[in-house]
Amino acid sequence: MEQSNYYQTPPKSESQFVNRITGLFGIRYPIIQAGMIWCANAELVAAVSNAGGLGLIGSGSMYPEDLERALLLVKQLTSKPYGVNIPLLYPDIDKHIELVIKYEVPIVFTSAGNPKKYTAELKKAGIKVVHVVSSVKFALKAQEAGVDAVVAEGFEAGGHNGRDETTTMVLIPSVAEILDIPVIAGGGIATGKSMAAAMALGADGVQMGSRFVCSIESSAHINFKNAVINSNEGDTMLRLKKLTPVRLLKNEFADKVENAEQSGASDIELAELLGQGRSKKGMFLGDMKEGELEIGQVSGYLHNILPAAEIVAEVWDEFVGTVRSMSAKLTSY
Amino acid sequence: MEQSNYYQTPPKSESQFVNRITGLFGIRYPIIQAGMIWCANAELVAAVSNAGGLGLIGSGSMYPEDLERALLLVKQLTSKPYGVNIPLLYPDIDKHIELVIKYEVPIVFTSAGNPKKYTAELKKAGIKVVHVVSSVKFALKAQEAGVDAVVAEGFEAGGHNGRDETTTMVLIPSVAEILDIPVIAGGGIATGKSMAAAMALGADGVQMGSRFVCSIESSAHINFKNAVINSNEGDTMLRLKKLTPVRLLKNEFADKVENAEQSGASDIELAELLGQGRSKKGMFLGDMKEGELEIGQVSGYLHNILPAAEIVAEVWDEFVGTVRSMSAKLTSY
Repeated sequence: MEQSNYYQTPPKSESQFVNRITGLFGIRYPIIQAGMIWCANAELVAAVSNAGGLGLIGSGSMYPEDLERALLLVKQLTSKPYGVNIPLLYPDIDKHIELVIKYEVPIVFTSAGNPKKYTAELKKAGIKVVHVVSSVKFALKAQEAGVDAVVAEGFEAGGHNGRDETTTMVLIPSVAEILDIPVIAGGGIATGKSMAAAMALGADGVQMGSRFVCSIESSAHINFKNAVINSNEGDTMLRLKKLTPVRLLKNEFADKVENAEQSGASDIELAELLGQGRSKKGMFLGDMKEGELEIGQVSGYLHNILPAAEIVAEVWDEFVGTVRSMSAKLTSY
Repeated sequence: MEQSNYYQTPPKSESQFVNRITGLFGIRYPIIQAGMIWCANAELVAAVSNAGGLGLIGSGSMYPEDLERALLLVKQLTSKPYGVNIPLLYPDIDKHIELVIKYEVPIVFTSAGNPKKYTAELKKAGIKVVHVVSSVKFALKAQEAGVDAVVAEGFEAGGHNGRDETTTMVLIPSVAEILDIPVIAGGGIATGKSMAAAMALGADGVQMGSRFVCSIESSAHINFKNAVINSNEGDTMLRLKKLTPVRLLKNEFADKVENAEQSGASDIELAELLGQGRSKKGMFLGDMKEGELEIGQVSGYLHNILPAAEIVAEVWDEFVGTVRSMSAKLTSY
């Protein structure tokens, strides 16, 4: 791989963009790398955090011993703030909670579950807590549970998804207007332009998943990364709407799920079809036919695999450029 | 109704915001009122155009004699540019095309059909032609057909909708990057913040439907306007996905459609259930149970019914304020 300029040239400025999210986390840019299962390893997290964003370990696909190893590694690779995403329905959740407290992880993002259960315990341990929501209703519940911020994730987001099908364009202003705590926008965001759009809608920061799946450092299998950057519009769909909605890249497995749903399969039949290890098989082991491939709708818009630091720098530069150019068009008005 | 300030105070400045869309149409702001069936009458169109936006007559719910009456009226009410939306699947389409040529309508938006068929004829008559699309694929076809601009409409939009379910956040940058002609964003846009978001994504203008349904002048029944401003998140859903996807406000009729779809009704059965006059019954005659209520997902975010001129002014002022405030935050960076 050719060395990128971003490794040779120091950043233009070491100053922090001051807002509620950079202040909360102590980071330079309000750009967060989602804690995607099978993709968000310590190397990716450290690269994002070192570049001025916030990297999150994806603990949802890790046994406690894997998480422990990742936590030890990330501390070797970065001195910057980092975090861990913990899906609250994780079977061995108590061990994960113990580990993030033991290793003094500064930031935890919780998802897929009730934020009431662990927020107080985590906050007591000095951890900043953020919860992922897909609606105003759940955003208010998260705020009541005492979290420091929410990620509001639209219908276009990859992986698990809300039942209301509210898109980022509609969800972000609705949540931002009603909440007192900061809002991080997720779903459909992969560039500085879409970051500017999210910030215009009232977000204080952005979380990107799909874009970082396609980074050099991500532990996604190269087959998966290539499938994403070669996909086109309409190549992802929301599946398993009855059981638990999830956005998947279309493949043989996703077609089987769709056919089962269309022919009226029961929840148990669907759960069996999903089975164990489908997501590992696809995203981590690279089986593009039989594996489950969780990715956002923005997949069809992604065309390259870059070092994570380059993604952070590119998104930030484009964000700044987009805002300045929009503003410049108004001065002549 | 209390008189609004917007009728008493002249606009701050009569100057045009210069971009490809205001230039193409000869309007002041790149804000377009969608030509919604049963809602977009001459009074609404004239109010929007007089306020510096572009109003579009919704000819899809009009017999040719209704359209003719609307065209005569709109010319009495405004000297500013206005347009007509013509769904290309309209049964008496040739009469509508004849009328817009006869009355020298300056701008025509076509939708729901193949732009190849009428674009050349309309352009030969000196009419600016815009086609509504829901994907990059159809956007490219429209450009090839010779239209002057496209409206790219996301999954969150009301009424008829694309099969790919691509949201505005993903669709707009994809279309804007690949097309040479200007792009107008539709779907989920109702405020100056969402206008700023759309422009950040690369749009040259915005089209708003739902927001103008809830204007004083719109011919939507007051029951429908009230149902929209009283709706909440999750109250619209994409229905008739097999036949022709359409976003509806949930009611008894929408539930019937959903149940029929779930129980595997044939296209013919669905078409029969839809029947004749369902949209008129709901949107124009105010039957909130049995009528078909086409509205965007942003419905749950709308809370008031204002004069159309006030909507245009409010959206523009918020757009300018949002861009300036985002830019100001960067100067300290």
